[in-house]
Amino acid sequence: MTVLILTCEEDVTADLVVAELAALGTPLVRLDPADLPGRAAMSAEYASGDFDGYLSVDGRMVAAAALRGVWVRRPGTPAARADGPSDWLTAETGQALYGMLASTDARWMNHPAAAERARLKPWQLHAAHGSGFAVPPTVVTTFPRVAEQFAARHGRVVVKTLSGPPRGEPRVVLPTALVSPDADFTAVAAAPPLLQRYVPKRADIRLAAVGRRLFAARKASAEGQVDGRYGETGHRWEPSAVPERIERSVRAYTDAAGLAYAAFDFAEDADGVWWFLECNQGGQFGFVELDTGQPLARAVAEWLTGWA
Amino acid sequence: MTVLILTCEEDVTADLVVAELAALGTPLVRLDPADLPGRAAMSAEYASGDFDGYLSVDGRMVAAAALRGVWVRRPGTPAARADGPSDWLTAETGQALYGMLASTDARWMNHPAAAERARLKPWQLHAAHGSGFAVPPTVVTTFPRVAEQFAARHGRVVVKTLSGPPRGEPRVVLPTALVSPDADFTAVAAAPPLLQRYVPKRADIRLAAVGRRLFAARKASAEGQVDGRYGETGHRWEPSAVPERIERSVRAYTDAAGLAYAAFDFAEDADGVWWFLECNQGGQFGFVELDTGQPLARAVAEWLTGWA
Repeated sequence: MTVLILTCEEDVTADLVVAELAALGTPLVRLDPADLPGRAAMSAEYASGDFDGYLSVDGRMVAAAALRGVWVRRPGTPAARADGPSDWLTAETGQALYGMLASTDARWMNHPAAAERARLKPWQLHAAHGSGFAVPPTVVTTFPRVAEQFAARHGRVVVKTLSGPPRGEPRVVLPTALVSPDADFTAVAAAPPLLQRYVPKRADIRLAAVGRRLFAARKASAEGQVDGRYGETGHRWEPSAVPERIERSVRAYTDAAGLAYAAFDFAEDADGVWWFLECNQGGQFGFVELDTGQPLARAVAEWLTGWA
Repeated sequence: MTVLILTCEEDVTADLVVAELAALGTPLVRLDPADLPGRAAMSAEYASGDFDGYLSVDGRMVAAAALRGVWVRRPGTPAARADGPSDWLTAETGQALYGMLASTDARWMNHPAAAERARLKPWQLHAAHGSGFAVPPTVVTTFPRVAEQFAARHGRVVVKTLSGPPRGEPRVVLPTALVSPDADFTAVAAAPPLLQRYVPKRADIRLAAVGRRLFAARKASAEGQVDGRYGETGHRWEPSAVPERIERSVRAYTDAAGLAYAAFDFAEDADGVWWFLECNQGGQFGFVELDTGQPLARAVAEWLTGWA
């Protein structure tokens, strides 16, 4: 039973899981869809009620029927490195590859359809509410007056991007930032930001759900730090127990979202409440494993191999 | 209870449904996501476990809580007509709009996640097999030898595009075409085509599933015609009964795919067998309604309004 990892070449997180799959003795194929067609080739035949598929990477052939798990890690654009790339060739190749994989019995981490919806931040907030998490009041709006009233009502408000920083070079970083309630909000008419009540926090929490297994880590905040992802705090990630209430909410959320892997970010306030900030279906875990020694890559490898 | 239609401005099929919604007295909002932000504005607030959303188009406001149905007809790219459009603004605006809509209780025709998978032609063949349809043997491959052997085995084979014709100008038409078994198949290594055993047909069948209602139409083929979409046959679409066996398979397929609307194309052979060719989750129906008088637009309007 083989595991397929869809990712680009430079991906340290994938390297960690590849090592664990090797340790488990699980055969694996690593494919960047950008290499199809070219370094990679595929075939899918539908006849007499049967489906037969093959994938070949660097001359190594794997049958679709042998695929146990597919890890959609950080795949490149289909056919991006083909001779004569085009949007059309990308569309054709994406159809062929993902259509073939969707015809297999493999388990997905994560299924592209589930991932697509789970990336929508407004939907995340809605699902988080429904799952029983504490969620800071949030608004996404193109109405300047709604933004103004929201900021006036909540006092300290942070602004976030919905889709992440713009792609391309030079790379731009958009950390979560505090905005003053008397700021000028007219610009929201041109692009809807996400505004959220600021949660004064004593720690950042990162919780990874890998199938049914949960791994939480906690990092104490530096005084006045707003975005835990940037800046040195002098603290490291430490393993943390998962409160039972949070565990129930995490399960409700991943079940509703149909996710096999999810990385939750929480802000822990002075009372110890974990406030839901976001849930990244493709979130990194290498940095947490490095600090805490929690066996995240191993858990991913085991899930893909088909272990409970 | 309001219906939201996401489509571009020039869309005759949408016009037909708009007229039927008006006849039913169902309030409706027509939005092209390309007009957000700009002619359109939106707001979504998540607080205390509640979700509150608003959409405004041309100054007309509708509450997300009032949305009964969302018809994803032919939406433009979010923010495409904004001042200063960019890929990033498109990503941010898409997050805001689709994230808000995903937080409502509205029924979708079709849900974007279901639509995404249903567009994959190889998955369609797989689902069609599983639903009990007769499906002509098909291969999608980048291996020239596999293509050669497939053509040799089946004799008369047609070649199709997987993703449709390339977009952009000038418009290109790629009709399904017969290929000779002794054709040169080396080019498949550069782009995977779909090869299918040719079904000699006496008629084309178009079957639309609108919720639980089925409408089939039949058009006799011209002698030797391969692609029923192109060329004058001298025949018109006529209403057709739906065989019980086909009805069962259609229901199995739309249930598996999670589709509220689906347009099936079949080839009827000399024995009267309906061969599954494809299922287009966004297929047109105006041309069939025009010829047959079947109330397709009315059925779509009723489904979106919430009628059984």
